[in-house]
Amino acid sequence: MATQFDPPSGTRDLLAADVERRERAFGVIRSVFTSYGFEPLQTPAFERLDVLLGKYGDDGDKLIFKILRRGEHEASGEADLALRYDMTVPLARVAAAYGSQLPSPYKRYTIGPVWRADRPGKGRFREFVQCDLDTLGSGSVLADAEALCAQHDALDALGLADFTVQLNSRRVLAGLLEAFGVPGELGPGVLIALDKLDKLRPDAVVAELTGRGLAEGTAGELVTAMTAPDATDRIRAALKPSEEGSAGLDEVDNVLSLASLQVPAGRIAFTPRLVRGLSYYTGPIWEVVAPGGAGAIGSGGRYDRLIAQLGGPDTPATGSSLGVERILSLLPESGAGQQGRLDVAVTVMAHEFAAASFDFAATARAAGLRASVYLGSSGKLGRQLKWASDQGARWCLIYGGAEADAGTVTVRDLRSGEQAAVGIGDLRSHLSALADADRPQGRR
Amino acid sequence: MATQFDPPSGTRDLLAADVERRERAFGVIRSVFTSYGFEPLQTPAFERLDVLLGKYGDDGDKLIFKILRRGEHEASGEADLALRYDMTVPLARVAAAYGSQLPSPYKRYTIGPVWRADRPGKGRFREFVQCDLDTLGSGSVLADAEALCAQHDALDALGLADFTVQLNSRRVLAGLLEAFGVPGELGPGVLIALDKLDKLRPDAVVAELTGRGLAEGTAGELVTAMTAPDATDRIRAALKPSEEGSAGLDEVDNVLSLASLQVPAGRIAFTPRLVRGLSYYTGPIWEVVAPGGAGAIGSGGRYDRLIAQLGGPDTPATGSSLGVERILSLLPESGAGQQGRLDVAVTVMAHEFAAASFDFAATARAAGLRASVYLGSSGKLGRQLKWASDQGARWCLIYGGAEADAGTVTVRDLRSGEQAAVGIGDLRSHLSALADADRPQGRR
Repeated sequence: MATQFDPPSGTRDLLAADVERRERAFGVIRSVFTSYGFEPLQTPAFERLDVLLGKYGDDGDKLIFKILRRGEHEASGEADLALRYDMTVPLARVAAAYGSQLPSPYKRYTIGPVWRADRPGKGRFREFVQCDLDTLGSGSVLADAEALCAQHDALDALGLADFTVQLNSRRVLAGLLEAFGVPGELGPGVLIALDKLDKLRPDAVVAELTGRGLAEGTAGELVTAMTAPDATDRIRAALKPSEEGSAGLDEVDNVLSLASLQVPAGRIAFTPRLVRGLSYYTGPIWEVVAPGGAGAIGSGGRYDRLIAQLGGPDTPATGSSLGVERILSLLPESGAGQQGRLDVAVTVMAHEFAAASFDFAATARAAGLRASVYLGSSGKLGRQLKWASDQGARWCLIYGGAEADAGTVTVRDLRSGEQAAVGIGDLRSHLSALADADRPQGRR
Repeated sequence: MATQFDPPSGTRDLLAADVERRERAFGVIRSVFTSYGFEPLQTPAFERLDVLLGKYGDDGDKLIFKILRRGEHEASGEADLALRYDMTVPLARVAAAYGSQLPSPYKRYTIGPVWRADRPGKGRFREFVQCDLDTLGSGSVLADAEALCAQHDALDALGLADFTVQLNSRRVLAGLLEAFGVPGELGPGVLIALDKLDKLRPDAVVAELTGRGLAEGTAGELVTAMTAPDATDRIRAALKPSEEGSAGLDEVDNVLSLASLQVPAGRIAFTPRLVRGLSYYTGPIWEVVAPGGAGAIGSGGRYDRLIAQLGGPDTPATGSSLGVERILSLLPESGAGQQGRLDVAVTVMAHEFAAASFDFAATARAAGLRASVYLGSSGKLGRQLKWASDQGARWCLIYGGAEADAGTVTVRDLRSGEQAAVGIGDLRSHLSALADADRPQGRR
């Protein structure tokens, strides 16, 4: 039930287990991207409104969160800033702003939230993380293959096994329209219809194609060629006579060949029906799909004219984007989330022992363990042991009158219930030894 | 010179070296906070406007970035959301929303941006990172000392050596007003004036006190007591007869005693003139100051009534906040920023060798090294070696006709200029050995 204390619609509070799970995944992704020589970039959460408006089409513009002007201008009801909607427009601005200060080619990744005023729904948020990787300044198919492989390796490193990469090229699609004699003006609509072959039955797509004005014979031939068991061979044969189609096939084959060391053969396939919704792609395009993932969990492609269109320099560009929120929902729950907050919980049996207990916690931290004293008001051991166990602690240090008299600390193993009296001066080495002995079981 | 491609006023684009420097620091802070048993929390960038408004005073309200309503409501010019202004109001909301689902006490840290429409200036930004640590649900001075020690340890771990912690208690201040017979209604103004003793000459503060209506004799005595060489002794003596003052002294002495293991003696001092600008503190308060730091680089204190005032449950609370942007400006430049983007740069001497070069880069990554192929269009070795050196690479792999004939890769040491021919099958072990030999010099 929604209450006044819920976060705003479409956003989430991430408590410890969620934050830890996400940060672990982001760390894995960062590490893979870095290994390919991509460097990080962080841009502000908001941009000037005019930088964003008109870049995402009318539908996109409506989803932009706009920020009201401030001070005396607030009453105007006008906006001058807006939350970033994606990572590509800020990249184009950065490329324009820093120009030659950036390395060439400029290979950057970015992981951070974007905001879209979409209708919230299951798995659809208004604040969500985008994880983009892009190379500006290289027209080489090597850059495309690198973007694809880095994305693949990141998914692999995250522990996702069951996914496939569908690869195509915009030039293959252009060649296809040419080869089947599709009139130029029908091209974009035909591609939109063909893109639905992964969801609709072939005859439904034929119907949509003819509805868009394509001759029934052409529509039937096209759909048959693309859905036959030997579809890719048929398409390859059909493309050969087209200059654009052949060039597209070369792109696809180059990427397939370059990626073959990194990507297992069964995991990537030439997929002629793949279109990608966005119109700005100019070369190789791909999508990563996983069973159980609603839609693609990753995508990418070459977009040689977009950066200039967005106000940046005229530079070739290629990149890939991971659908982080979907990927996180597919990842197996790791046991790490159940580690608890503490390794060592330290009782405070009475005010007079507080300073000693505080010191013992510091000693445990110096031994590389997470440790804290009891901060409650109960002096009862049972209550404090319950707290220790609620923290998921592995050991509890008990220090009361008997221990003070003996100059020892009682170290209680919260798994076995066994206790040992340890001299105060030996506490650090004792805890280090316990931690070492525990390590093979995979704690820290 | 400002251009249309600059980020919005008061915000920054963080290029690779800045991101890496900041992330390294945040990693250190996270690790220290975790070692104390604090857990992470992330809340959305924006909150409902009514959650934020009225919480920061009139001046604060003016600095809130408000988000325009969307769709049909946009034309109203009204806002319904706002960017978070601090981390405390979201914490209060989370405490109210999740209640007993949270551990008790709830010890959380958060590191993330907040937004304030302040006038931008040197070192003052409209988007900046806040790094807060708070304990809800414990009224114990142990929790205060823990918040202080965790903050201290984080600064220490960051490599900041030259800083001091000024410690006081709100109850000491209340006792002080009582001991010197300051009329109740003058109390807040007197404290504001006394807080300036770190910046103004004593006589200027006396003048301000009398200007605020305090009797000249009282003003003089108060300032003399607080600025004398034996100020803390005088203040201690003056506070003794006051119940509130004695309780405050006990708080201060307890924190000093508890912190003594962690914080070197010369680094923390009872500082009776410390007031802290914010009115919500109720117990121990502290500031961390460093030479060269404009103002405090950290602060903290107990605020037992604030969470309820902000709409959360009625719970005792204490916490600390690090002035991350200031701290980052004080940290020594580490050499790590100059590491370069790559360990291994791989030439692509001709299209026919591209696939092999691509494989060599993957081999280098498999050996734990950062590696990438040349993505440019030049086939000239000199040009590609220049690129390799611009990347800061340690080694360059060269593979052309001669190498292909011999079945070898030329591994060039970019520091010494020496080259070796390595069999393709031996490349991985060769690179691993090179990396191992290089490691003592501190590369990875």
